[in-house]
Amino acid sequence: MTRRGIYLEDIPLDEVWRRLATALGAIGLWQPLPAEDVPLDQAAGRVTAAPVWARLSAPHYHAAAMDGYAVQAHNTAAASDNNPLKLTIGAEGQARYLDTGDALPAWADAVIPIEHIQSVEGGIEIRASVAPWSHVRPMGEDMVATELVLPANHVLRPVDLGAIAGSGHSTVAVRRRPRVAVLPTGTELVPVGSPVKAGDIIEYNSLVLAAQVEEWGGIPTRHPIVSDDVDKIRAAVAEAAATNDLVLLNAGSSAGSEDYSARVVEQLGKILVHGIAVRPGHPVIIGLVRPAGATPEAQPTVPVIGVPGYPVSAALTGEILVEPILSRWLGRPPLRPATIEASITRKVLSPLGDDEYLRVTVGQVGGRVVATPLSRGAGVITSLVRADGIVLVPRHLEGLNAGERVSVRLYRSADDIARTIVAIGSHDLCLDLLAQYIAAGADVAGDGGGARRLSSANVGSQGGLVALRRGEAHLAGSHLLDPDTGEYNVSSIRRYLPDVPVVLVALVGRDQGLIVRPGNPLGLRTLADLGQKGVTFVNRQRGAGTRVLLDFEIGKIGLSGAEIAGYDREEYTHLAVAAAVASGMADCGLGIAAAARALELDFVPLFKERYDLVIPQAYYHSALLRPLLEILQADRFRREVAGLAGYDVTHMGEVMGEIN
Amino acid sequence: MTRRGIYLEDIPLDEVWRRLATALGAIGLWQPLPAEDVPLDQAAGRVTAAPVWARLSAPHYHAAAMDGYAVQAHNTAAASDNNPLKLTIGAEGQARYLDTGDALPAWADAVIPIEHIQSVEGGIEIRASVAPWSHVRPMGEDMVATELVLPANHVLRPVDLGAIAGSGHSTVAVRRRPRVAVLPTGTELVPVGSPVKAGDIIEYNSLVLAAQVEEWGGIPTRHPIVSDDVDKIRAAVAEAAATNDLVLLNAGSSAGSEDYSARVVEQLGKILVHGIAVRPGHPVIIGLVRPAGATPEAQPTVPVIGVPGYPVSAALTGEILVEPILSRWLGRPPLRPATIEASITRKVLSPLGDDEYLRVTVGQVGGRVVATPLSRGAGVITSLVRADGIVLVPRHLEGLNAGERVSVRLYRSADDIARTIVAIGSHDLCLDLLAQYIAAGADVAGDGGGARRLSSANVGSQGGLVALRRGEAHLAGSHLLDPDTGEYNVSSIRRYLPDVPVVLVALVGRDQGLIVRPGNPLGLRTLADLGQKGVTFVNRQRGAGTRVLLDFEIGKIGLSGAEIAGYDREEYTHLAVAAAVASGMADCGLGIAAAARALELDFVPLFKERYDLVIPQAYYHSALLRPLLEILQADRFRREVAGLAGYDVTHMGEVMGEIN
Repeated sequence: MTRRGIYLEDIPLDEVWRRLATALGAIGLWQPLPAEDVPLDQAAGRVTAAPVWARLSAPHYHAAAMDGYAVQAHNTAAASDNNPLKLTIGAEGQARYLDTGDALPAWADAVIPIEHIQSVEGGIEIRASVAPWSHVRPMGEDMVATELVLPANHVLRPVDLGAIAGSGHSTVAVRRRPRVAVLPTGTELVPVGSPVKAGDIIEYNSLVLAAQVEEWGGIPTRHPIVSDDVDKIRAAVAEAAATNDLVLLNAGSSAGSEDYSARVVEQLGKILVHGIAVRPGHPVIIGLVRPAGATPEAQPTVPVIGVPGYPVSAALTGEILVEPILSRWLGRPPLRPATIEASITRKVLSPLGDDEYLRVTVGQVGGRVVATPLSRGAGVITSLVRADGIVLVPRHLEGLNAGERVSVRLYRSADDIARTIVAIGSHDLCLDLLAQYIAAGADVAGDGGGARRLSSANVGSQGGLVALRRGEAHLAGSHLLDPDTGEYNVSSIRRYLPDVPVVLVALVGRDQGLIVRPGNPLGLRTLADLGQKGVTFVNRQRGAGTRVLLDFEIGKIGLSGAEIAGYDREEYTHLAVAAAVASGMADCGLGIAAAARALELDFVPLFKERYDLVIPQAYYHSALLRPLLEILQADRFRREVAGLAGYDVTHMGEVMGEIN
Repeated sequence: MTRRGIYLEDIPLDEVWRRLATALGAIGLWQPLPAEDVPLDQAAGRVTAAPVWARLSAPHYHAAAMDGYAVQAHNTAAASDNNPLKLTIGAEGQARYLDTGDALPAWADAVIPIEHIQSVEGGIEIRASVAPWSHVRPMGEDMVATELVLPANHVLRPVDLGAIAGSGHSTVAVRRRPRVAVLPTGTELVPVGSPVKAGDIIEYNSLVLAAQVEEWGGIPTRHPIVSDDVDKIRAAVAEAAATNDLVLLNAGSSAGSEDYSARVVEQLGKILVHGIAVRPGHPVIIGLVRPAGATPEAQPTVPVIGVPGYPVSAALTGEILVEPILSRWLGRPPLRPATIEASITRKVLSPLGDDEYLRVTVGQVGGRVVATPLSRGAGVITSLVRADGIVLVPRHLEGLNAGERVSVRLYRSADDIARTIVAIGSHDLCLDLLAQYIAAGADVAGDGGGARRLSSANVGSQGGLVALRRGEAHLAGSHLLDPDTGEYNVSSIRRYLPDVPVVLVALVGRDQGLIVRPGNPLGLRTLADLGQKGVTFVNRQRGAGTRVLLDFEIGKIGLSGAEIAGYDREEYTHLAVAAAVASGMADCGLGIAAAARALELDFVPLFKERYDLVIPQAYYHSALLRPLLEILQADRFRREVAGLAGYDVTHMGEVMGEIN
């Protein structure tokens, strides 16, 4: 617990870039790296360091543009249908056969295509004259020697390599690729693939950062994990600085007791920035260090970025800071993701003074593009994996209102977005499986749409119906029991979606019951047991079908939430409930058999219920949803679901009603 | 001249895909390739072959979300400002220090952040209670074991690798990368980097095809050039087929005397397609062959594509045929370039029955997106290099009308397009140099626009003014002399752009004169010499400033075009005129000194003229053009132009007038 209370600043990004430009500019590092010549077969994706001027013309000679006979045009003037003209093959000034691309003889100035001649004894016969330079590709048609072939700062594509080769070069001057060391630190870290115990953190930030660096044109080197020992970290940084253009030090960039990065950078050089006005990603360090071997008086010359430890922060630090530096060194404009205008589906509060990067899913629903915020936890890497894009909430705003127009920087192509089926509603494991079947439906021949993608957000059954009403989803999973009728979903749809014609399609029947630890050590049998002293429960969030079921059933037996320990602790999915039981956080929860089975827990079945897909008519009949509906009819998916615990597939794919 | 008259069909693309699907389907090749497990640090960009399900939860234990003290929440209930509570450090059930990410002790259920405690003798003091599970990342917050992490058929991005590692995997099952042999054939071919003589063709199609294959996820192997010998080609194809999934045989796919591809494919297996209804790219062969070592009775099992020899055809064959096959084998949807709606600037005729892929430049001019067709020659690779995108003219159309709306498949990002300054008009070498200076202006800090790009099309001075009137360009280079006033450009602007306020900015003064062979062997001195017998001339196209000058000056001396041999042969640039002289196609042409110098020709100066940039007011004041105008003011560019032959930079950047 040393050095607590290091002060983290809140430096806006533009000030961060000013400081970097000044400090790196002073040592000649705020400009592209030196050039190197590479053979053309290794040049794809590299950035030209100088303009490429044509050394040769292309073609570099007058070339036959077709298979045919080289002639002198003025010799053919008299030829006509009535007056066929014979030319002698091989004789200078008469006719010589050429394949496409062959050089025109010096005496010739035109080519007659083979289709337009008749072979005759010792020669050819023509019945039309030909204009000078017909069917000839004149020297320089494509490029003239000395012409600009490609400018500097151009990212080389396959065809560019052809043009450079065709203009007489066998190598090209490109920027050297920046070398970037990725240095994971932390006593709690274990390498990918090691067995883990409580407290161990699988070190994968270096995997992500290295792959980013590679994608952006750098040469990454992942270093072994260094434990939290300031001397070891300092030695590793100095060593990495000796052979790299940039060192990414992860983590220890915050101000905790084992956050040594700031100290190391101070000892090896100087800190330029500690703490940026960006969330997630706030505790970033930027500094310059002396490489190993430099004298203590030497100017620090190697930039180091202290990258925060939470995986979302680490990946975003890569995008926000590392990519622009690499682009600068490569001499190309920074990568700019495509953007799309969307309306945000939920109100978002955001700290004034900080730029917040909000991960969102994006869907195109009924002509509108909607962006739905994902988890904002910096530790939740799946929020980045599931994100279709990022919305920047700028630092002068306190947040966004629901429905507000935002610009989304896309992680996927707009085409991917257009092929995405947006499901918002209740969670069921079958949806994961369905997503899998849908993604596997890639089709080259092209049904005009390509494979669909199922994006599903878990907000509970009622939340899904609300999302449908707001036009934010194509379908919602729902299992809302109407206690008065015993019917599923119909009355809720009438209540929440009074004006929307929908089709109700059965997905599965399933068991609901108590998820308990293996062997059911507390011997729980009924919902009444939840009121027992010493039994802790984990609940689902309000609006979840399972929560509606619980409240209805405990009401029937006269039990209230206040009498159940843990009633207020809410989880958003069946698996999260099962995880809470597996970890000992709770003794039991209400959920589905498949979730219990997945985590090797025991299950006490209590109720049978129906889980449906609620699909507005307009989408039910759309080309977008067709593959999904076909999968529900197909045997393969049905058999696989039937193999899971607690599912009944009897009605899968059946239309249970058309409402409104 | 053997086997002439092989019949090339005109098979529409959808029929091509049907035949391929049937033939490859029958031998199990119309589906993704088998999976292979790769370590995560080699998995970026690969395609998942199976869904990834979480093996571990993440976190896999209850973790401290902040640096602080683990406590039992119920122990803190009594704490308040008036009633500070002391907890003993280290004692079970009291308080234990944790760094962020540390495992919660089994007895604890909450963390109090370090900021909220006071250190006291032997313990900590707190002044507020804490709710259960505060500042704890519960097990499974990110992922719950058994949950779907990623579906199959997903292209792995850097963050995906982190999620896979975090869910307990160290490898991932991905599709094997398809192996593709690229086999150049042709006696006329010479390898990149060899000296060339007339008739030699630099073999670079294999460079382009291999780079395409690599970019699309395959493993290309470039084979040495095979001469036009049917036995050698057959042996090379069979050999390549033994170790590759696909063989690209380039060229010889047409029906000429040295086109052996069809024969080789027939001998080794069967032809599925010979000739597709696509331009350029028509003479494609698709077939299946038996690999070396197979018996003659064996089924042919290795697909071969006979790729046409013209470079544009070869590259487009890659895009149209090879990419979708590789995508199919990799199990991902075929790549779909972003598209943009544009209006085509010129009428285009296109053969009925063939899909034509038209290369275009795309510009965003005054809120409108315009697409300008480039050269359609299949031998002109620079037309692909300069293309911003491709317009498909479908086979049921005979062409496009000027102004028609088209969908452009972009080769560049829409952002690149928005940063492009479109220059259409007269050609001058300084524009190439200017393009170079503009491209070099990359700027990380971001002036809101990034580096600009100068796209210039050469249509002559009058053509440029017409393009400005039509709203197709931001500026036009022009050197149109008004014979009555001796002024440049002003009267032409009044005539062509009567309603458009423009700013006339001087670029350079330059010499116009006769470009002649070294030593001026014909002793040409004046324009009058063009009328001499035995002197051949090469002209510029109608509407070019140089053509206007020529016609004006020969009129003055009473010479007519009909008296000048070669007056009808038109070229579109000064360099093309110089190339015609250098190659011996003509004895002389009228042009600028720099073009003569570039090709080491002699120059007979005759006239001095002014070359201006004509810029509509609206663009003159736009942020888009600012960097261009700044370069004209800067010393570096001025000095470099002054160093070129025949240029006068005295007035560079000066506003010579504001018209209308």
